[in-house]
Amino acid sequence: MAMFPDSHQDLLDAPIASLTTIGGDGFPQSTLIWFLHDGGELRLSLNTSRLKTRNLLRRPQVSLLIVDPADPMRYLEVRGMARAQPDPDRAFAQRVGAKYGADLTAYDAPGDERLVVTIEPVNVYAVDMHH
Amino acid sequence: MAMFPDSHQDLLDAPIASLTTIGGDGFPQSTLIWFLHDGGELRLSLNTSRLKTRNLLRRPQVSLLIVDPADPMRYLEVRGMARAQPDPDRAFAQRVGAKYGADLTAYDAPGDERLVVTIEPVNVYAVDMHH
Repeated sequence: MAMFPDSHQDLLDAPIASLTTIGGDGFPQSTLIWFLHDGGELRLSLNTSRLKTRNLLRRPQVSLLIVDPADPMRYLEVRGMARAQPDPDRAFAQRVGAKYGADLTAYDAPGDERLVVTIEPVNVYAVDMHH
Repeated sequence: MAMFPDSHQDLLDAPIASLTTIGGDGFPQSTLIWFLHDGGELRLSLNTSRLKTRNLLRRPQVSLLIVDPADPMRYLEVRGMARAQPDPDRAFAQRVGAKYGADLTAYDAPGDERLVVTIEPVNVYAVDMHH
């Protein structure tokens, strides 16, 4: 497994990342998301009704880009495989929500489910354009 | 052609965007880039030696994500086709550089060429999570 370098460890706790999945039309789809650095892994709580979720269930190759909010010259790109697991009692969604002081499930519609999505790194690029 | 909505016109002049191309291994590749809003189009000056450039010459489906630097809840995602044209005298590279007060070609190696890459929008998503 690719590791996260010491120089960019702080970005694992940044507030926002952009997740790119690949759509059925072959276009990359990029959205901003909340995430959690959890047990050494980068994990997301995703609603099954969303396009990005359906994309990564079919095509698990994803990219997660975490930019230093104070310095856009510094960022971490993680290319990896998205592995999804159920979150039937929404325990993981609550843990991500605790990072943000928010209830992630507040916008879930009846019938929506939540998944725990772990990004298993294949390549990690730590960029600092100042160096 | 998809249009850029009035609500997000200011983001067309933002300093930084993230460009996602698709690699030969099927993984999305995301990097931060400089860009220019030029004649109503979103254009990049890319060095031919870069992986992102080689990716988009082979697979022109790209995504450009422009986040409001003052408010990450507000962003513009442009999915489009990357059309590349030569920039033999680097006139376009100079124009992008003028936006940033920088010389983009300072890091070009001998033999590198520059391309003008225009993102032809297929779908534009203007997101404001406050609304």
